[in-house]
Amino acid sequence: MTQNIAILGASGYTGAELIRLIATHPSMQIKALSGERKAGQPLAQVFPHLRHLDLPDLVKIADIDFSDIDLAFCALPHKTSQQVIAKLPRDLKIVDLSADFRLSDPEAYAEWYGNPHSAVDLQKEAVYGLSEFYREEIRSARLVAGTGCNAATGQFILRPLISAGVIGLDDIILDLKCAVSGAGRSLKENLLHAELSEGYNAYAVGGTHRHLGEFDQEFSKLAGREVRIQFTPHLLPVNRGILATCYVSGDASAVYEALVAQYAAEPFIEVLPMGETPSTHHVRGSNFCHIGVASDRIEGRAIVVAALDNLTKGSSGQALQNANLMLGLPETDGLMLAPCFP
Amino acid sequence: MTQNIAILGASGYTGAELIRLIATHPSMQIKALSGERKAGQPLAQVFPHLRHLDLPDLVKIADIDFSDIDLAFCALPHKTSQQVIAKLPRDLKIVDLSADFRLSDPEAYAEWYGNPHSAVDLQKEAVYGLSEFYREEIRSARLVAGTGCNAATGQFILRPLISAGVIGLDDIILDLKCAVSGAGRSLKENLLHAELSEGYNAYAVGGTHRHLGEFDQEFSKLAGREVRIQFTPHLLPVNRGILATCYVSGDASAVYEALVAQYAAEPFIEVLPMGETPSTHHVRGSNFCHIGVASDRIEGRAIVVAALDNLTKGSSGQALQNANLMLGLPETDGLMLAPCFP
Amino acid sequence: MTQNIAILGASGYTGAELIRLIATHPSMQIKALSGERKAGQPLAQVFPHLRHLDLPDLVKIADIDFSDIDLAFCALPHKTSQQVIAKLPRDLKIVDLSADFRLSDPEAYAEWYGNPHSAVDLQKEAVYGLSEFYREEIRSARLVAGTGCNAATGQFILRPLISAGVIGLDDIILDLKCAVSGAGRSLKENLLHAELSEGYNAYAVGGTHRHLGEFDQEFSKLAGREVRIQFTPHLLPVNRGILATCYVSGDASAVYEALVAQYAAEPFIEVLPMGETPSTHHVRGSNFCHIGVASDRIEGRAIVVAALDNLTKGSSGQALQNANLMLGLPETDGLMLAPCFP
Amino acid sequence: MTQNIAILGASGYTGAELIRLIATHPSMQIKALSGERKAGQPLAQVFPHLRHLDLPDLVKIADIDFSDIDLAFCALPHKTSQQVIAKLPRDLKIVDLSADFRLSDPEAYAEWYGNPHSAVDLQKEAVYGLSEFYREEIRSARLVAGTGCNAATGQFILRPLISAGVIGLDDIILDLKCAVSGAGRSLKENLLHAELSEGYNAYAVGGTHRHLGEFDQEFSKLAGREVRIQFTPHLLPVNRGILATCYVSGDASAVYEALVAQYAAEPFIEVLPMGETPSTHHVRGSNFCHIGVASDRIEGRAIVVAALDNLTKGSSGQALQNANLMLGLPETDGLMLAPCFP
Repeated sequence: MTQNIAILGASGYTGAELIRLIATHPSMQIKALSGERKAGQPLAQVFPHLRHLDLPDLVKIADIDFSDIDLAFCALPHKTSQQVIAKLPRDLKIVDLSADFRLSDPEAYAEWYGNPHSAVDLQKEAVYGLSEFYREEIRSARLVAGTGCNAATGQFILRPLISAGVIGLDDIILDLKCAVSGAGRSLKENLLHAELSEGYNAYAVGGTHRHLGEFDQEFSKLAGREVRIQFTPHLLPVNRGILATCYVSGDASAVYEALVAQYAAEPFIEVLPMGETPSTHHVRGSNFCHIGVASDRIEGRAIVVAALDNLTKGSSGQALQNANLMLGLPETDGLMLAPCFP
Repeated sequence: MTQNIAILGASGYTGAELIRLIATHPSMQIKALSGERKAGQPLAQVFPHLRHLDLPDLVKIADIDFSDIDLAFCALPHKTSQQVIAKLPRDLKIVDLSADFRLSDPEAYAEWYGNPHSAVDLQKEAVYGLSEFYREEIRSARLVAGTGCNAATGQFILRPLISAGVIGLDDIILDLKCAVSGAGRSLKENLLHAELSEGYNAYAVGGTHRHLGEFDQEFSKLAGREVRIQFTPHLLPVNRGILATCYVSGDASAVYEALVAQYAAEPFIEVLPMGETPSTHHVRGSNFCHIGVASDRIEGRAIVVAALDNLTKGSSGQALQNANLMLGLPETDGLMLAPCFP
Repeated sequence: MTQNIAILGASGYTGAELIRLIATHPSMQIKALSGERKAGQPLAQVFPHLRHLDLPDLVKIADIDFSDIDLAFCALPHKTSQQVIAKLPRDLKIVDLSADFRLSDPEAYAEWYGNPHSAVDLQKEAVYGLSEFYREEIRSARLVAGTGCNAATGQFILRPLISAGVIGLDDIILDLKCAVSGAGRSLKENLLHAELSEGYNAYAVGGTHRHLGEFDQEFSKLAGREVRIQFTPHLLPVNRGILATCYVSGDASAVYEALVAQYAAEPFIEVLPMGETPSTHHVRGSNFCHIGVASDRIEGRAIVVAALDNLTKGSSGQALQNANLMLGLPETDGLMLAPCFP
Repeated sequence: MTQNIAILGASGYTGAELIRLIATHPSMQIKALSGERKAGQPLAQVFPHLRHLDLPDLVKIADIDFSDIDLAFCALPHKTSQQVIAKLPRDLKIVDLSADFRLSDPEAYAEWYGNPHSAVDLQKEAVYGLSEFYREEIRSARLVAGTGCNAATGQFILRPLISAGVIGLDDIILDLKCAVSGAGRSLKENLLHAELSEGYNAYAVGGTHRHLGEFDQEFSKLAGREVRIQFTPHLLPVNRGILATCYVSGDASAVYEALVAQYAAEPFIEVLPMGETPSTHHVRGSNFCHIGVASDRIEGRAIVVAALDNLTKGSSGQALQNANLMLGLPETDGLMLAPCFP
């Protein structure tokens, strides 16, 4: 049975990535695409790489008839998303890709995002969309909150280690490098080719990046005590990919075993042979996440490195994976594309 | 019915691209992968981005049992290919991606490639693999010769114009820019990141590039007279993509109409609205070719620009399209992946 | 004797490049830097790569005391430049980097730029700033108009050939590829890293690029008859560099000799050995221009390829070269930096 | 007085960078360039970007007359360097850019490099070439050992902090990202543009990178006790630049003050305002090193980030700085070039 899909905010990168993936999905059909400022335009004008697809023109959200939509992806900016979703039909299944419903505590939300939440009841209802760890809740959820792309990467490394109790909780360091598409299609000087290519830098140094709100929430819940990690993101001159290098105290073999045990049956998470570490080249354009472990020459210290594509597994691929769960479809539908290398 | 596939020379870029595409094919199964120097290795070691696939290990060609293979892709180096194919079973369907069978005239081959052909009978048998123009011959062929990636791009522009008689034949200029993967996985100083990125240059200037042999053969055959074009390739600091800018004398509207008429029913060739020209960004990782036409301010001069992915439509995608034809499968199977942007 | 310099519009790329070059100049000192919207900021905030230099803060143009300024570089946007220069002291030496004074004919200006010129008397006074060809006029000029970066590249190839009468004038084709810094520090979607890197495209196809106005003016003047060339610019995923591939009819040896004769004594223009063609890698960050010639396999056709750095020889380096001439300084002062490779 | 210079191993990247810098030096003249395999070739053939310079052709080392050479830069591969230097005149001043004389302990050398040292007496004589910290020893040295580029970056961050006693010594983590030119001009698959661009990865994970030998030696000497840090290098898709992100325990203000105090008078090391962190964009092609400090949200934790150009401050610029010291010249001669941005 065909599932009818709407994508709200289809003129950004996560919107385009959703369309790219859904185009290969055996049972989803895109019925509506929204873009407030570009309403009326054919999608081929906004994203010429999708011109071969038979897609509806962009419309305003207010002009979408949701009565025949089975599920809506909401790829709108933060703050806008909560306002829009609050006005959508209460029985519509929704996967939100914004940051608006990731934090379940209104105070934590206000602290990290600088404004009170305008839809606190929806915030309570939303299920955190890390598919591999909230699979059952997602299956029965109406509203799923896609995770931050950095937040997903860090959790793929650390959740199994915290659960298994194989690492110290007070000296975790996550040094992460993210591709520029993670910043979206926004016109900022530092995102220009001339300013970004051929160099790199850290940003949000010292514990100010908003994805820390997700780490705090999730790791503390898992550990049953407050956990605060150090996290430094870096902006890299590539378009897709996150590589996270995580420094932990603990026995490297135990760390490795915990990861292998956790992910043995997962279709998208590959734990590499002990001692090998991954490259973003090898997950680019795909929904796969590669994780590798190495022991350090300093006893009792281990390094875990994870690589994924921020637009796919870190965002739109995760969203589609969640939608598959919510609609009772095979979880891997539309998501088995091999990475595009070179 | 499942078609059993062998890929000879699976450790290069066109081999990897074939595997990436075939992984999405509904009725092909890869039964054998060869790599002489890497025989015995799992493919995941050679191409970690394909590690999620269930594939046979690399073997030597001599160790492949061809009795249950329906079709072999031959992604071997030039000269090697003709020697290998000469020893394969005479009833095995073969798509060759090398240059060895593109020129049907042994003298032309010897002139462009600097050595006599060692399998002249096969050379005669081979069908030129430009799917859109040799479709019927390919359907019944046993041995198909994949075209050069630059040669394919230039022909997508020029064949309809020559056939329609809408351009002059004596002042055609093809200025072409090709991505580095077109040079294969070879260890050459000028292919190093440090030498290639952040700059660009022309090469084989003045009419010495071997793909000119294909242009000469095909355009002269089409026109019924000798046609010699000027062709300058450039090496560009990207991994995938060819953009060809072609300067012709003729009426731009007539040129446009000829292209529209030729490609109206083609699934992979998109003629853009008059005046728009394509970008390689919008075909990257896909089997599509975008073509655009503009009239020049100088009356009677037109510019035609085409973009495709050299590894896909220019090579492995074309090969798969030909294989589909040879095996009686739907021509677009495994080839409808949307481009990967950004 | 120290020459006091002002740079108007110092917060753009050509402004930054002027500062980088002047920092190595033995007899120039920067006394004033303007930036209307960033007035009051130290330059290190706008361009952290220049933080080691002892430079004045940015100010508004209206706040500059021009009485002790010997020469002003004007790196302002088109249209703004003519308005600002009209109000500057009439005896101030000025090198303008904008397009405002490149065309000497008010009608040609209006046609190419879409608005009437607001300072027609200055337009008449301005000398065209192609140093190698207007050296004597520049020495005695008060106002010099820097050329377009593409226009400079094309003229370095074609002026000697037109002057020497060794090529046909009715079938000149200039296929040019320009780095993204040529578009300036402007916030446009197609200049974002995510949209520009890993691909390439043509633009202003069909004879609509404004630098054609310069070609028309200069080539027609040189030839003593109307000359119209075909010119297609392409946008490339690098930050610096122009490569122009020029197709002409004529004897390649005669073409080569004309170039060698013209540039034998020029410090910045290097004609490569016959048959070699240049790469932008080898001029990056420098004021050099490399030119190479090849004969085509088609008799009577030649290809000339030129490479330069659009920000240096194509813009700020040219401007400094002109300023040296105007101030009676050695022409190469501040300009002999070797290219930065890799 | 002109100083006569020889560069041994001039056909690699550090050789080319030395020539680029020395070309702007007021009192050095290059008298000999060696390249064993390319002996007899003009340098313009090996490095066309240096073709405007008047340089001697490449020769074999055995053919150099060292009697009129004041100082030789040795830019040869590891192991070769110690053999060559052992045969050079004993009174020739030498700056070695290889790893051969960085470690003063023969056992440590054998452990990290896997073979016994063949010139132990020279090893004892050599002064460690971190200019800012061994200035006086370098002034009177005959043989100076250039540091590893990663090793220099880490030491610029950590030496002042260890000396000032403001950080813990047992939990230092250095997460470092290095450009590809750090790997030299070697033909390896992972250095190809098609394999390296558009992605990134860690390597030598777990404490196996040889530059750790330098960290161990220097930090232990400084601290008066054994110090072992965790160090993970990453390979990044740019040609120049190192960014090191260092995680330490200590008070961020004290860390900041220690850096400011150390580098207040240094011409090449810039400590950014508290809270700002650097970018490799802003040091590219220059001898500058930018360092920034941020406090973490976790009390007692600080992050220090340093950026430099691996080929300049990390290698050839450092070498020239040392040569200036050895020859009694102003330390900054030939080294004040501004970074090349964009």
